[in-house]
Amino acid sequence: MFKAIVYVTLRESVIDPAGSAVKTSLHSLGHDEVGDVRIGKYIELEINLKDRQAAEERAQEMCQKLLANPAIEDYRYELQEV
Amino acid sequence: MFKAIVYVTLRESVIDPAGSAVKTSLHSLGHDEVGDVRIGKYIELEINLKDRQAAEERAQEMCQKLLANPAIEDYRYELQEV
Repeated sequence: MFKAIVYVTLRESVIDPAGSAVKTSLHSLGHDEVGDVRIGKYIELEINLKDRQAAEERAQEMCQKLLANPAIEDYRYELQEV
Repeated sequence: MFKAIVYVTLRESVIDPAGSAVKTSLHSLGHDEVGDVRIGKYIELEINLKDRQAAEERAQEMCQKLLANPAIEDYRYELQEV
């Protein structure tokens, strides 16, 4: 079995309202040292397959089909045997 | 200057409705090989400080004050000099 760790982040060119809101909140809490804030998704999912190559292909497919929006997001993932 | 990479995840004991919804969607797309799915936050933030120790302390403080909800979430972070 494998565990896929997927990181989904907004493209650099895409404005991040959630990140800006967190930045404003941090400043209001006295954290003026904080600059740009970008918020993405961190997804852990179990893949019940024995073959690493098959698990790689399925993880890639899931990212492209559902987990990341190709119009505005980038993704990367790591595969761990568990 | 430093960049903090923060990972915020739900505690193991906490039910993850978003993760369950993604799991159901993946199954409906034919990904029956998918088991448990857990979704968290991946946050990148700039810290405009020169001293690493100070940046560590501020990052820790931000996680505890705002970025993670201690009642239901765990957090960890990495600090990169940029």
